[in-house]
Amino acid sequence: AQSSVQMYGVLDMWAGRSETSAGGPASSVVNSGGLQTSYWGFGGAEDLGAGLKAIFAVEGYLLLDTGTGGRTTTDALFARNAYLGLQGAAGELKIGRVLNPLFVATAQSNPFGGSIRLGPLLAQVWSVPMGRTVYGDTSWDNAIAYTTPVAGGVKLATIIGLGETSFGTRTNNVGATATYEQGPWMATLTAQRVRVGPGLATVGESEQRTYFAGASYNLGLAKLFASWNTAINQVERGKGKTAQAGVAVPAGPGSILLSWAQTRSSGAPLADTRRDTGALGYQYALSKRTELYAVFQNDKLSSASLGKTYAVGMRLRY
Amino acid sequence: AQSSVQMYGVLDMWAGRSETSAGGPASSVVNSGGLQTSYWGFGGAEDLGAGLKAIFAVEGYLLLDTGTGGRTTTDALFARNAYLGLQGAAGELKIGRVLNPLFVATAQSNPFGGSIRLGPLLAQVWSVPMGRTVYGDTSWDNAIAYTTPVAGGVKLATIIGLGETSFGTRTNNVGATATYEQGPWMATLTAQRVRVGPGLATVGESEQRTYFAGASYNLGLAKLFASWNTAINQVERGKGKTAQAGVAVPAGPGSILLSWAQTRSSGAPLADTRRDTGALGYQYALSKRTELYAVFQNDKLSSASLGKTYAVGMRLRY
Amino acid sequence: AQSSVQMYGVLDMWAGRSETSAGGPASSVVNSGGLQTSYWGFGGAEDLGAGLKAIFAVEGYLLLDTGTGGRTTTDALFARNAYLGLQGAAGELKIGRVLNPLFVATAQSNPFGGSIRLGPLLAQVWSVPMGRTVYGDTSWDNAIAYTTPVAGGVKLATIIGLGETSFGTRTNNVGATATYEQGPWMATLTAQRVRVGPGLATVGESEQRTYFAGASYNLGLAKLFASWNTAINQVERGKGKTAQAGVAVPAGPGSILLSWAQTRSSGAPLADTRRDTGALGYQYALSKRTELYAVFQNDKLSSASLGKTYAVGMRLRY
Repeated sequence: AQSSVQMYGVLDMWAGRSETSAGGPASSVVNSGGLQTSYWGFGGAEDLGAGLKAIFAVEGYLLLDTGTGGRTTTDALFARNAYLGLQGAAGELKIGRVLNPLFVATAQSNPFGGSIRLGPLLAQVWSVPMGRTVYGDTSWDNAIAYTTPVAGGVKLATIIGLGETSFGTRTNNVGATATYEQGPWMATLTAQRVRVGPGLATVGESEQRTYFAGASYNLGLAKLFASWNTAINQVERGKGKTAQAGVAVPAGPGSILLSWAQTRSSGAPLADTRRDTGALGYQYALSKRTELYAVFQNDKLSSASLGKTYAVGMRLRY
Repeated sequence: AQSSVQMYGVLDMWAGRSETSAGGPASSVVNSGGLQTSYWGFGGAEDLGAGLKAIFAVEGYLLLDTGTGGRTTTDALFARNAYLGLQGAAGELKIGRVLNPLFVATAQSNPFGGSIRLGPLLAQVWSVPMGRTVYGDTSWDNAIAYTTPVAGGVKLATIIGLGETSFGTRTNNVGATATYEQGPWMATLTAQRVRVGPGLATVGESEQRTYFAGASYNLGLAKLFASWNTAINQVERGKGKTAQAGVAVPAGPGSILLSWAQTRSSGAPLADTRRDTGALGYQYALSKRTELYAVFQNDKLSSASLGKTYAVGMRLRY
Repeated sequence: AQSSVQMYGVLDMWAGRSETSAGGPASSVVNSGGLQTSYWGFGGAEDLGAGLKAIFAVEGYLLLDTGTGGRTTTDALFARNAYLGLQGAAGELKIGRVLNPLFVATAQSNPFGGSIRLGPLLAQVWSVPMGRTVYGDTSWDNAIAYTTPVAGGVKLATIIGLGETSFGTRTNNVGATATYEQGPWMATLTAQRVRVGPGLATVGESEQRTYFAGASYNLGLAKLFASWNTAINQVERGKGKTAQAGVAVPAGPGSILLSWAQTRSSGAPLADTRRDTGALGYQYALSKRTELYAVFQNDKLSSASLGKTYAVGMRLRY
């Protein structure tokens, strides 16, 4: 049983004008991660016979514009994925640091995919500088993740992330994501409870519950997206509700992308605010692996002035 | 002469209850490095003709549970190996950061191999949180390492690690390991003198001398292991003596592993203490490269209460 | 269109006596990066058809002697190159962190190539501990680099590196390098203006302009090198002028290398000083990819005593 290891990743760079609402003055930038957060990694699978495989992946983010490892200075070297596991007829088991199924669900439910900087939905849900509503990271530490096989178009992804603090089980994260994919339909539901990780005010006390529903429908001439989620801070009594709608329209060798998201926050830690973010883009495929893109993003926090971003970029999957 | 480069490494994760004596309260964990410290790396060899090869290896540890590079926050990116060298009929020369031959000898002399967390011998000799007796790291900086060819089953590995401090040669490390392997026998002897690296109290003054003897004998039905070592802190007048015995018994597609180690410390920096660590495990081979394992470890420092660890894990070599 | 990714790099280690003028006492060392700064990386190209290629490279420095990532503790993980781009009949466009064309020009214009530690020219121009005259790094952040196709032996490499500070365009770096290569001749001219990066006293105010001219001529029996450059600190009114001459003489399976460089500094930040650095070396090719070398370097700052370095080393390209 030979084990094979492969290098892979996504490199994404853009240039333009960057300005988000309440995010400081506009600036000309050459930045990493327009349509997707750049990452590098390696992984593979070993066939163990009888339909069973050992699997592994080790992936780290990087900022191509400065060559820096991680998305921020606090990121681990391999902050995206670092797991090993087993895959077979009974499903897939991963142990290590694992991409959160909720992150995958949010990426599937909007036309800008995994774009945290330019995609309105992910910006509002996951971007720290744009007031992320969901706590805990997009990947979880000390995780055991089990995903069922697909049955009738449905699979269920579950994940537990241990806090490994002196608070014991009071700092464990849990999440479950059910996803249905059949014909033109995709629908996904997530519930997660976060008790450890970025965003939480007080370790051992704070807790956030998030419920997410997303869907897409492929009309052929266009693919429609919609999502709704609420993130509730149990102890601090704060809440963030986000709704998003979008569409991707095939046009020539690429697609026109349009999405709009709105978050209404109330209570702690944010005051009562509303954030509206919209984006219009075009991605042009140079090949199956490489594309050019142009995106215009409007971002408005109710308590601050409008931010406008213009981006022209390139994404390469290797 | 084509040079070839290959990626390789070991990924090891376990889940369970972790508790060491004097190491704080027990906790439920998903941790990296049960049977072996996880690492990633690349390396290769270039055939130079006439039996000579240029060799290189660049290897770094990682904690799979959090995706963190290194074993601790003070580890270099490539803390395991980072060398180039030559290999031929006259032996092997490496220059750079090189795995300490004493570490290899300790791993060969107990049934739990390179396990620093669960293997009793390596826990007592090398694990910082479990009161390591041997100073300096398991790899040495600024090293020149020469290993003879095997003759009559015997090879000699020598290593010098320069301190590169203002104290000059007074902060150089040296070590020599002779290893005999023939038929069912393996026997190994090491002497090393450490004057720079982790554990030493005062750079330029402190010095530790370690003598290690280890052996294994393969009966067929079982493989027996034994080792003895003493680490003497010259200036601070402290001493740690460790004895270990173990056995590995093939059972089905795996092996039962049993090992017990005892360290008696006296003088500085530890008071007069005794540490007893025992482990019983089973490793089950899914393939030549991948295995599942279960280990129970008992750990008792004379001055603290008993610590019990239960671990179930998986190790994959890629 | 398959994308291919390859691992590559240069590993270089030397041992000997290290002493530079005004650089502290001599010490015995096992050091990384004698003839070239060691690095590791991966990259590739994807054929997009019609003569167009998508290209990418991700490369980080490492210190092999300690396994440390980066040249110093402030280096990013991938500080050498981290870009993607396009390559075709119209030239080459890179976006990300990109090797500065001036660095390439200096390396081409002396017999010791990219050696910052042992080569006299690069030591005086780029080495921080040896009083670098040129500010900004050898690679630039937030860069867009465009290189023309070769026409009549000439190509032009341009680069812009955005500061992305609140000072806007007042902290952008720009540079242009023209290079002519035909028959035995190589000639290269660079002008660059640095407003952001290491060395600059005051962000948003300080500015340094550097002009560099270099050439080589291959006589067959010997290859001659010469270079001249001036680096002018606009605001602080300081200046560093460097002249260098060198020769490489093929001898047996290798080459004798000789180079001498002199820098005259005046004004801020250095007082009026003169630095003379000379080096004599022999590099012996074990293969096309691997070589051994021996270098003697003399270094004298007018205000300090002579420093002598003796180095024996090995370089491997994988």
